[in-house]
Amino acid sequence: MTALRVTVWNEGVHETTQPDIAAIYPNGIHGAIAEGLREVLGDDVVARTATLADPEHGLSEEVLADTDVLLWWGHIAHDQVSDEVVERVRQHVLGGMGLIVLHSGHFSKIFIRMLGTTCSLRWRNPEGGERELVWTVNPTHPIAEGVEQPIVIEAQEMYGEFFDIPTPDDLVFISSFTGGEVFRSGVTFTRGRGRIFYFSPGDQEYPVYFHPQVRRVLANGVRWAAPSPGPRQAPAVSNPQPVGSGSPA
Amino acid sequence: MTALRVTVWNEGVHETTQPDIAAIYPNGIHGAIAEGLREVLGDDVVARTATLADPEHGLSEEVLADTDVLLWWGHIAHDQVSDEVVERVRQHVLGGMGLIVLHSGHFSKIFIRMLGTTCSLRWRNPEGGERELVWTVNPTHPIAEGVEQPIVIEAQEMYGEFFDIPTPDDLVFISSFTGGEVFRSGVTFTRGRGRIFYFSPGDQEYPVYFHPQVRRVLANGVRWAAPSPGPRQAPAVSNPQPVGSGSPA
Amino acid sequence: MTALRVTVWNEGVHETTQPDIAAIYPNGIHGAIAEGLREVLGDDVVARTATLADPEHGLSEEVLADTDVLLWWGHIAHDQVSDEVVERVRQHVLGGMGLIVLHSGHFSKIFIRMLGTTCSLRWRNPEGGERELVWTVNPTHPIAEGVEQPIVIEAQEMYGEFFDIPTPDDLVFISSFTGGEVFRSGVTFTRGRGRIFYFSPGDQEYPVYFHPQVRRVLANGVRWAAPSPGPRQAPAVSNPQPVGSGSPA
Amino acid sequence: MTALRVTVWNEGVHETTQPDIAAIYPNGIHGAIAEGLREVLGDDVVARTATLADPEHGLSEEVLADTDVLLWWGHIAHDQVSDEVVERVRQHVLGGMGLIVLHSGHFSKIFIRMLGTTCSLRWRNPEGGERELVWTVNPTHPIAEGVEQPIVIEAQEMYGEFFDIPTPDDLVFISSFTGGEVFRSGVTFTRGRGRIFYFSPGDQEYPVYFHPQVRRVLANGVRWAAPSPGPRQAPAVSNPQPVGSGSPA
Repeated sequence: MTALRVTVWNEGVHETTQPDIAAIYPNGIHGAIAEGLREVLGDDVVARTATLADPEHGLSEEVLADTDVLLWWGHIAHDQVSDEVVERVRQHVLGGMGLIVLHSGHFSKIFIRMLGTTCSLRWRNPEGGERELVWTVNPTHPIAEGVEQPIVIEAQEMYGEFFDIPTPDDLVFISSFTGGEVFRSGVTFTRGRGRIFYFSPGDQEYPVYFHPQVRRVLANGVRWAAPSPGPRQAPAVSNPQPVGSGSPA
Repeated sequence: MTALRVTVWNEGVHETTQPDIAAIYPNGIHGAIAEGLREVLGDDVVARTATLADPEHGLSEEVLADTDVLLWWGHIAHDQVSDEVVERVRQHVLGGMGLIVLHSGHFSKIFIRMLGTTCSLRWRNPEGGERELVWTVNPTHPIAEGVEQPIVIEAQEMYGEFFDIPTPDDLVFISSFTGGEVFRSGVTFTRGRGRIFYFSPGDQEYPVYFHPQVRRVLANGVRWAAPSPGPRQAPAVSNPQPVGSGSPA
Repeated sequence: MTALRVTVWNEGVHETTQPDIAAIYPNGIHGAIAEGLREVLGDDVVARTATLADPEHGLSEEVLADTDVLLWWGHIAHDQVSDEVVERVRQHVLGGMGLIVLHSGHFSKIFIRMLGTTCSLRWRNPEGGERELVWTVNPTHPIAEGVEQPIVIEAQEMYGEFFDIPTPDDLVFISSFTGGEVFRSGVTFTRGRGRIFYFSPGDQEYPVYFHPQVRRVLANGVRWAAPSPGPRQAPAVSNPQPVGSGSPA
Repeated sequence: MTALRVTVWNEGVHETTQPDIAAIYPNGIHGAIAEGLREVLGDDVVARTATLADPEHGLSEEVLADTDVLLWWGHIAHDQVSDEVVERVRQHVLGGMGLIVLHSGHFSKIFIRMLGTTCSLRWRNPEGGERELVWTVNPTHPIAEGVEQPIVIEAQEMYGEFFDIPTPDDLVFISSFTGGEVFRSGVTFTRGRGRIFYFSPGDQEYPVYFHPQVRRVLANGVRWAAPSPGPRQAPAVSNPQPVGSGSPA
């Protein structure tokens, strides 16, 4: 098996402007995620990172063409992501690149563009956060393989329903929070030839991406979202002759 | 509009053998449910009741043929329901009769027979119960119409995931409980020509079926599960000629 | 019941520039569709029409606010629809307005914007067209109520798979064509609070919108896509206190 | 990777009683299927076979416990399969064993028992059969990997809609036939911890199981249906303490 080529994208603003968050994520949120993937997947993965501040946000045509699965973390700078890059990412997803959108990425341009809805939700972040329990409701799904029932995250921002997304292809995880809310915290979609996984745990104020079970989920997600063999190519219109008509289809 | 013909079935064992439960449901669980439907639907519904102790459990061919939607509550006497009646009910569901299965009815013969899985789950019933919050995750679904976000049920038995059911057609409600569990508490299925709705709130120890919002959900469920026009007829095998072949299809 | 307020939108270019098509649809494609809805739904519908050439394409804020269900037919002028109007329509759909997209509308801006995919497909239109058979695969769905199995459309443009759409909420119809292709010709989606129905029969070169069964499907679709009671309001982010915390939620 | 342990079950009646069919399938339908799996999967599979005439139909507890994926072909002897064996197979599927049901197996006891519906359909088998085209409608699904669009099967029995099954988890293939019918010919379900794939091509009168593309689909299906790691264990009811309550969960 060839190693999976992963790019972890992070806007990277909190860590460079807020010392308290830099203390939690000294290598950035992207760094912590990439380390987690290497920890779980070992030689099966080659993980690079990219951030908003990089030229073309680090998401040039070359980088995307060399990426099997792209992870996306953003929060306070969604608007600063260029529409051109968003459309480039979308074309790669339609052509087969996997996309994993994390936590506050629910409001990213790329997520809203792929799904078409507002992607709005209910949230709350009291001092110290709330305990999140992540329950598996689809135990045969590859993304749930080897995951504890439930995952216990001691401190997290609360995300609650109604989460305005299209009906997912697969509902893998549902979370509850101390305050009583529930959230569809692990959901999958297919768009064009690309697989999309949204996973909500992971706020910048809490060390969620160091949690071994969260790392397991993201590693499973990367395996699941990896493209099928074949060229990176979005579905396209065609005007064929009937099958068996003698003319080339 | 002709009134919907509803039959509320209850095993009716708790209320006749346990005075504390009879005190909560003096007219039986079936009585409370039927009253709730009349309260919400008024002249749009004609609700009768039937119990395990009735001849043929009150579910003769005649009664089922005269029923648009059957509600099912059972708990400690699932085994006493005759296989013949279960198969009769199944045939009516396949032919178009709506079926609403309630709470501990998840372990009824008819539910397991229609779904094929174990229908097992996680449960807990501490002294005084736990608070259940019922969250709508599909606000455009007819069963969620006019329902508060969330429904607050002060005391309930806890039901938690993993709930071993097939992937539902529609996931309408997800509940959380004081102890942190989550549960897909409102789910729909189609089997043959029949619509099935499972709704989990409603333990015999708590007056859940008097809750106005629970009554609203059940009334919406009855409307939703009502059959399309046409004869009560399960899909059947056929051996037709091709369309337009001149022979009768 | 209050009458359903329907707006039938058509780009209206073929009928005004090609006499052969004007001969098939003397009142325009929009006119034929609106007549069909009136024929089936009678006083239950008030149908108006709008076209590309109208100011704001006939889709002002006032018109949309007064529309329960919008039908959309377009083909050669998708690019001429203003982005501002598309976004306005999208907001109304997210807020609850029903949307029915027809035939070549699969490539309309609004459909692609709501679904996120390329919406590409396979097509062929030989002289005289191909026979399309529309098969119901979900007989309990409200959109299939009273519809013949199959609908026989003697002449149509062929649309075939792969049709690049997200997995639909409900698959209602599958078509076959003389040349052997198949197509998911009747599919539903929910986006925000709005219901979307795509139905593929209906090319400008064939009198499909006069077909009684096609008219039945569109009338069923209008009933199904009509909004639930309540204000026209897209889901929005909120930051509530926990339930029962004493503070307003 | 350990080799997948596959058991191909066939009632094996046609081949032993009808010389014309024995001539098509000299090693039995089960033999042809097993050969196809070995051809495509090589050392990744160990395929054994079993038939109705074997003791316990060749499906003892020992055999099933040693089986990752069971393929099922039956037609005229469904009634002769013992209920005890059917329930044994069901328990293994609920516990994680993959199940692939083929063609006329739609009317097998195990398929109906897992799905709950009548599994009825429309069929026709004119002299020489009809051409079946199998179209992929979910190109990212693992079962569609490397499969031609469409698969052309020159002669087959026709199976048409309405096919009375629950809404599948995934719709992978739709077939058309010379007579114009369509059929959801490749569908997946999850029941308990087990994955189920139904694939309709494969009548005893035609050499369908020698078709390279059909063999590809079945090999893909075996890979997809293989269990996740872990013990063979159906979901079961549990009565845990709350998470973090200090008592064992």
